[in-house]
Amino acid sequence: MIITMNATANGAEISRIIKHLKAKNYTPRTSVNGCIRVAALGKGEAIDWDMLRRTDGVAKIEPPEQPYILASWQMKPERSIVKVRHVEIGGAAAVVMAGPCSVESREQVLSTARAVKKSGAVILRGGAYKPRTSPYEFQGLGVDGLKLLREAGDATGLPVITEVLSEDDVEIVAEYADMFQIGARNMQNFSLLRKIGKMRTPVLLKRGAAATVKEWLCAAEYILAGGNESVVLCERGIKTFDNSLRNTLDLAAVALVKELSHLPVIVDPSHACGKRSLISVLSKAALAVGADGVIVEVHPTPEKALSDAAQQLDFNEFGAMMRDLRIAPNGTPVRL
Amino acid sequence: MIITMNATANGAEISRIIKHLKAKNYTPRTSVNGCIRVAALGKGEAIDWDMLRRTDGVAKIEPPEQPYILASWQMKPERSIVKVRHVEIGGAAAVVMAGPCSVESREQVLSTARAVKKSGAVILRGGAYKPRTSPYEFQGLGVDGLKLLREAGDATGLPVITEVLSEDDVEIVAEYADMFQIGARNMQNFSLLRKIGKMRTPVLLKRGAAATVKEWLCAAEYILAGGNESVVLCERGIKTFDNSLRNTLDLAAVALVKELSHLPVIVDPSHACGKRSLISVLSKAALAVGADGVIVEVHPTPEKALSDAAQQLDFNEFGAMMRDLRIAPNGTPVRL
Amino acid sequence: MIITMNATANGAEISRIIKHLKAKNYTPRTSVNGCIRVAALGKGEAIDWDMLRRTDGVAKIEPPEQPYILASWQMKPERSIVKVRHVEIGGAAAVVMAGPCSVESREQVLSTARAVKKSGAVILRGGAYKPRTSPYEFQGLGVDGLKLLREAGDATGLPVITEVLSEDDVEIVAEYADMFQIGARNMQNFSLLRKIGKMRTPVLLKRGAAATVKEWLCAAEYILAGGNESVVLCERGIKTFDNSLRNTLDLAAVALVKELSHLPVIVDPSHACGKRSLISVLSKAALAVGADGVIVEVHPTPEKALSDAAQQLDFNEFGAMMRDLRIAPNGTPVRL
Amino acid sequence: MIITMNATANGAEISRIIKHLKAKNYTPRTSVNGCIRVAALGKGEAIDWDMLRRTDGVAKIEPPEQPYILASWQMKPERSIVKVRHVEIGGAAAVVMAGPCSVESREQVLSTARAVKKSGAVILRGGAYKPRTSPYEFQGLGVDGLKLLREAGDATGLPVITEVLSEDDVEIVAEYADMFQIGARNMQNFSLLRKIGKMRTPVLLKRGAAATVKEWLCAAEYILAGGNESVVLCERGIKTFDNSLRNTLDLAAVALVKELSHLPVIVDPSHACGKRSLISVLSKAALAVGADGVIVEVHPTPEKALSDAAQQLDFNEFGAMMRDLRIAPNGTPVRL
Repeated sequence: MIITMNATANGAEISRIIKHLKAKNYTPRTSVNGCIRVAALGKGEAIDWDMLRRTDGVAKIEPPEQPYILASWQMKPERSIVKVRHVEIGGAAAVVMAGPCSVESREQVLSTARAVKKSGAVILRGGAYKPRTSPYEFQGLGVDGLKLLREAGDATGLPVITEVLSEDDVEIVAEYADMFQIGARNMQNFSLLRKIGKMRTPVLLKRGAAATVKEWLCAAEYILAGGNESVVLCERGIKTFDNSLRNTLDLAAVALVKELSHLPVIVDPSHACGKRSLISVLSKAALAVGADGVIVEVHPTPEKALSDAAQQLDFNEFGAMMRDLRIAPNGTPVRL
Repeated sequence: MIITMNATANGAEISRIIKHLKAKNYTPRTSVNGCIRVAALGKGEAIDWDMLRRTDGVAKIEPPEQPYILASWQMKPERSIVKVRHVEIGGAAAVVMAGPCSVESREQVLSTARAVKKSGAVILRGGAYKPRTSPYEFQGLGVDGLKLLREAGDATGLPVITEVLSEDDVEIVAEYADMFQIGARNMQNFSLLRKIGKMRTPVLLKRGAAATVKEWLCAAEYILAGGNESVVLCERGIKTFDNSLRNTLDLAAVALVKELSHLPVIVDPSHACGKRSLISVLSKAALAVGADGVIVEVHPTPEKALSDAAQQLDFNEFGAMMRDLRIAPNGTPVRL
Repeated sequence: MIITMNATANGAEISRIIKHLKAKNYTPRTSVNGCIRVAALGKGEAIDWDMLRRTDGVAKIEPPEQPYILASWQMKPERSIVKVRHVEIGGAAAVVMAGPCSVESREQVLSTARAVKKSGAVILRGGAYKPRTSPYEFQGLGVDGLKLLREAGDATGLPVITEVLSEDDVEIVAEYADMFQIGARNMQNFSLLRKIGKMRTPVLLKRGAAATVKEWLCAAEYILAGGNESVVLCERGIKTFDNSLRNTLDLAAVALVKELSHLPVIVDPSHACGKRSLISVLSKAALAVGADGVIVEVHPTPEKALSDAAQQLDFNEFGAMMRDLRIAPNGTPVRL
Repeated sequence: MIITMNATANGAEISRIIKHLKAKNYTPRTSVNGCIRVAALGKGEAIDWDMLRRTDGVAKIEPPEQPYILASWQMKPERSIVKVRHVEIGGAAAVVMAGPCSVESREQVLSTARAVKKSGAVILRGGAYKPRTSPYEFQGLGVDGLKLLREAGDATGLPVITEVLSEDDVEIVAEYADMFQIGARNMQNFSLLRKIGKMRTPVLLKRGAAATVKEWLCAAEYILAGGNESVVLCERGIKTFDNSLRNTLDLAAVALVKELSHLPVIVDPSHACGKRSLISVLSKAALAVGADGVIVEVHPTPEKALSDAAQQLDFNEFGAMMRDLRIAPNGTPVRL
């Protein structure tokens, strides 16, 4: 149930409700937006909702309209802005995250960080733990990669994002990164989601390659339900019958998610299409459809990259893309 | 084989090549762009290509790189502009086609024609023959619908487009319409494609709901091979595992087709998403990704429509969308 | 509405109902199974169903539960058996149809007819009009192919089935073939379905590569509604994200269709998987799941075939498959 | 590279090869089948393969044909038989695993164990940790569920299988279960796969709902590469455009995997179709296509189940299914 308090409800009244829910074995979560809303999560004991409805301070009590309660507008009728250090995702400015698919060397990640910052990127991406189809492919530099990424972030002042693949790596990644990335293959790794839910590091949750919009929002709900409110969604293409491109970018889902949820959404055109020449127009379309930003793979010499060679932009291509998106090179992106 | 003539090749030289191909049972097709190119279509007899390569006027002879020869840049390295009466599709201006899903009555189609023209649409759409999943659903007004559509087009000066479902209807539709529409379900109705290929009326070829980009371009090739060069492609969403929306709009395919072919491409956001509130942002994204226009369903009172009620815009919504696309209300659309 | 008459209703009572429906502009269709059922098809005028319910001879009047009325158990609670000359599809025996993908020559089709008959096939298949992705691929021998197929059928006593691609070819195909095949690409070619509905030649309706079970049954309904009751369904694989095989054979859909409809269903493992070595086990699985038969491609020398070389069996392979299915070589197949 | 030794190669010769590979930083894995094969896994240093080829005892050295090396016939030209206590999967007898979706109570799991054993099941399944789309759905009894499952297994003599969702639960699950299950959502949870690879408990690896056959076999390779050779694959339906049933059972993939790999494969018709009435025929088809067994959900009172109510069989339905599969009630199943 979602309990909406009166705008004039006071702390004591709110506390009483929360205490009652806890006593009945529900987990209460609140949102503040003009008035306070309290969601009663979980399967607690029977409650006399009609009586509760008549309690002081309570405006209304309604069942949730969606299985993703905390992610819905019903629970929080205000766009979420997720802060990654000084960068706001979901605010007025479109956010561009950029960097190499994999961190390969100090020189590689540092030069990329400088180049993407110069062109207007505000967050640095780079993989230290790589999810690879085959166990015999390059699996990333691990902790060494985390350190190099951190160093490049510090050198340029860019917050850094990197993928966390394993529950066991959550703490070490949190130590080095400003934002977790959960990859498409782990979107329904519920153990990982629960562990990330207990952290306070912001998280970028990629849509699974065969996840419906509802499944995606329910995956976000796992994190939100754990208490981590800094969730950004990322559309990165779905699997369809058409193998013309790596995946099928589902921009309508971005527009739909904006209707269903207050969470910010960004788009990853690199993995969606897997084809360098389309990244720029797809980024433009992503912003046109209402995305809060894009995450793009950039590499000093894409043809020599240890992973995803076909889809990484070089510095010049990235610069051209950013000009095409009309994002100022001083790092102050503007929303189209 | 594709035979590229010298820029200085004269008529006699070109005629000699064409005559030779015909003698060997090939169907020759030409394109003009700086120089003349001649495609030798079909499975003719053995030809001594090396000898032909040394013939006067011949610059080079190369095998086609794609199964869709005439639709490829290799055969025609210049964007095609398809003229529908005075309207150019594929040129500088983005083209908006609009109108009701089905023609239902004189009043309905006439008022819609006036409204969409006022907001900047340049082609009027309307279904007279409707492809319906069930034989017991409304199948369209047939010839009466064609007449009403023509009347509305004449009254407003808008060229009209309508779907042709049957080989037997090709002539009657050509009599009333300025542009054929081939629907998604008929994209590989090869008999219909061949018949349309013999006509000279421009045609809008919708992508099948499960057609790959290659299959789509090969379907266009059937029409081009018949001699009808006025083909416009239309992306309208594909079938995927996710039923959150009616179909999955594949905007990356639009960008990809632009790389593979000189044919104009437009987008149908109405059928792609089936949801009124998303039409405008998807149209914007379509133009951002390089589409040459959009085709949108508009109805005076969508909730009373005999088909596709959930996805038709009313006049105000359409007007707002056009302003959002920054398309001038005087009918002179500008490309974003 | 579906009107079920009493088991004791007499001709006059039934005629009165039918006359009334016609007067109100409905198309009545009847089924006989213990009692008579009358379906009132189309959108006629308002009828006082309560009054009709009290009419002599009427047992009950109920709305259809499915959009495919005639294809449903509700309208006909008895398995349909479709007769193709002397062969019964949907009866006690599993039916094997076999023959080359394309009719290529007299020798080819005749030798194949003899070989498949010897191994137990009871219907000869062979393509005269071929639906090909590209206009430049082999399109079949046309009428010459029909004649050769007929000749081979007559020589062996096997009824013949062949695909009809165009409305214009319906009559000529009916002249030579004992059963129409409607291909996957034409499953929603409603004009063709309507024309076939007016014929009395049995028809095999392949499932579209992206058709839901409901769409498939509604396509059958187009034919049934036209008056042609001899419809056999054919599952031939659907398009999915996985390109390991040509298509994804959907055997659960066969079982589901058997629950939803009285129509016979057969399976085409050749097109479903496109891989010779899997045809036999997939046929076995098809019969295990309740299919009424299979249709398999057989060629004297598959590696030289003009189409679908990878999926055609040679005579020995077909013989082995038939033994594996425990189908007697004398042409009297038995249901597993 | 895969190094095949002579049938007469002795221990010293084989050891020399393995030592050399280790010295060059490769991970050697061996298979025994008539002769010894040694796979050199990982990206070690440069090796003079030509020289190695001339070493005593070496018959041939070939590059792997597939990215899944250990799972391929090339590395092990002999069917794998996976032993779960006394039960052999992949051997002469088809194996039926059965039990409730979730362990709910002692009485529920015990009565089910007894019933399925009586009907011929040889392994007991039951979920203690449940992967649920929403965080607010029943998540399983956890360790209490493991204990009840173990108790029911011990009481009936049936080995037990249960899903492991989290790396952190691997040890505790190994303590209570005879076989791990990795669910479809975790098929590419590479951290979990690696951890399971280090265990010696057999594992059932379900195919991801959008995993290609290659991705599935590569996921198995992660486990095999870790040293756990007891991997059984499980097809459980894939996501497609057709929502008529819960998923689309891909039986052709089962046949294909049998061609590509020596690993046993079983089928889960319950999750594939989500519809009680189809489980039996789909199980039959699974065995017909070559599956080594099936895993089926059984519950004393399916309509009261806490999860997957629509697809669980009751005891009578399961008994009927087993008779339909001709599996003897004494627990000695026979292959169809």
